[in-house]
Amino acid sequence: MKCKRCRGNAEIQVRHHNAAYCRDCFIFCFQRQVERAIDKEHMFSRDDEVLVAVSGGKDSLALWDALVALGYRTTGLHLALGIGAYSASSTQKTEAFARLGGLQLITARLEEDGLAVPTVVARTRRPACAACGTIKRHYFDRLAFEHGFAVLATGHNLDDEAARLLGNVLRWQTHHLGKQQPVLGSTHERFARKVKPLFRLSEYETAVYAFVRGIDYVIDECPNSEGATQLLYKDALNRLEAVMPGTKLTFLQDFLRLGRPRFATEIDGPPGSCGRCGMPAYAAVCGFCALLGDTDTRRSQRVIPASNDAS
Amino acid sequence: MKCKRCRGNAEIQVRHHNAAYCRDCFIFCFQRQVERAIDKEHMFSRDDEVLVAVSGGKDSLALWDALVALGYRTTGLHLALGIGAYSASSTQKTEAFARLGGLQLITARLEEDGLAVPTVVARTRRPACAACGTIKRHYFDRLAFEHGFAVLATGHNLDDEAARLLGNVLRWQTHHLGKQQPVLGSTHERFARKVKPLFRLSEYETAVYAFVRGIDYVIDECPNSEGATQLLYKDALNRLEAVMPGTKLTFLQDFLRLGRPRFATEIDGPPGSCGRCGMPAYAAVCGFCALLGDTDTRRSQRVIPASNDAS
Repeated sequence: MKCKRCRGNAEIQVRHHNAAYCRDCFIFCFQRQVERAIDKEHMFSRDDEVLVAVSGGKDSLALWDALVALGYRTTGLHLALGIGAYSASSTQKTEAFARLGGLQLITARLEEDGLAVPTVVARTRRPACAACGTIKRHYFDRLAFEHGFAVLATGHNLDDEAARLLGNVLRWQTHHLGKQQPVLGSTHERFARKVKPLFRLSEYETAVYAFVRGIDYVIDECPNSEGATQLLYKDALNRLEAVMPGTKLTFLQDFLRLGRPRFATEIDGPPGSCGRCGMPAYAAVCGFCALLGDTDTRRSQRVIPASNDAS
Repeated sequence: MKCKRCRGNAEIQVRHHNAAYCRDCFIFCFQRQVERAIDKEHMFSRDDEVLVAVSGGKDSLALWDALVALGYRTTGLHLALGIGAYSASSTQKTEAFARLGGLQLITARLEEDGLAVPTVVARTRRPACAACGTIKRHYFDRLAFEHGFAVLATGHNLDDEAARLLGNVLRWQTHHLGKQQPVLGSTHERFARKVKPLFRLSEYETAVYAFVRGIDYVIDECPNSEGATQLLYKDALNRLEAVMPGTKLTFLQDFLRLGRPRFATEIDGPPGSCGRCGMPAYAAVCGFCALLGDTDTRRSQRVIPASNDAS
């Protein structure tokens, strides 16, 4: 097989583009796709300081790597979630990547705020992924605001976005369908613009990119994600993709072109500000402060029966 | 397990309704669901003469059986497609069912018109399912018109409709999304109203119904359907359904309620009439006459080289 770009020996096949590449050309094309997504969707320019959310997994590290290689001005943002060995390893790989590349990294340790994910889950009995999502969104927004970043980039890839779309479509969640796009503009002074430069690159492509770039990333999935609905959707789409390469890309691209505009009326107006923390909120308090409230309530509820027992 | 309706011993579990039934109550509930679909969607009334398209498979025979049991006035319409032993068996089972119930049946034999599906496929080189669909639609409409039926009922079940919806959504075929509904009103004097009274009943439910009613139906799938995309979509949805019962029903129902209205602007205006056969057409000739044209062209193309060889 010949490389589509240089006609040398191809090593990497990309079935949904019906193409194969040598390592160097694959890296070139991957980065070019990232750059095109950024330009075409008006995500940011080379003048912007971009905050990159980095978990330590292949997608976010591949994104950071590509942005640096393309000459964008970046700072990494890592949240140490406190999920045992998984989080410890994630933080270690992220810090090693930053150190090796001489890159700026902000690390926030949830444990130091008493908000390690397992602690919050135990206190609120919320599903782990829901609680974790609320915490992450809050920290991303707050830290972006506090450090003066107008743009936050995340490593969501094609598989993530297609699986999310399938979930939204299976229940016709019109509100979520209206909001699902690769760029979410800022609607509040404390809301950074959220961008997903990898939204057209598959999980397979980001994994290959990370491999050929020699990026050392956390391979394990988060232990909480086992059995997550999102994985079922990914599996369903992967089975279709295996027989009909291009299914995921068409599904997402045609949605953005033909489907989403019909749900755009569902988008919320601008949010207000949370009465407690001042961050954006669609209710009197933001989702994060509501979660903290639950944490406090559960904590005090637990104290009462204990003292009753003692009396 | 107790029957949800009579509290007797349950034999049949319907997971997506989180219910179980004894045989009699299952039959009662199945028929009630058919009746409710007919009433709620304004498909037809007990005064209408309904033409029921009957293939000899479980769905269409279950539909016909339920309509008769519910007291509707029906006539069966069967197309003998000429697909070898599969079609022979389908016709035989359909005729036996009609005879046993003393029901009126119209049978059209495509072979007699020189239009057996394998013949058409060989002459036009069109995909079998596409050619077969065009032929069937034409015969359904023409025979309904010729015999004076205003309503044509087909046995499409929940699995069929959900798989079709998934296919339409994966490619965001906005025009097809606008048209996908359990009732297609007539838009031409030679177009019967098309209705799908089983659209909320799963393939599993129609199979169980046919079994407990002792209906003898063709079990084999059409040999042309092997590897059909539709089966891939059904498989994907079945895998999701197994983990999350109710997925298919929610997908279809919420589409009809929340999704389809946003694509309704895509519906075609009323069709014109085919310049050749007078049946409804969106172009100068209808799809069926275009197919016949292809058949003729291919036939004459084959003759030319043969006579050249001989000269």
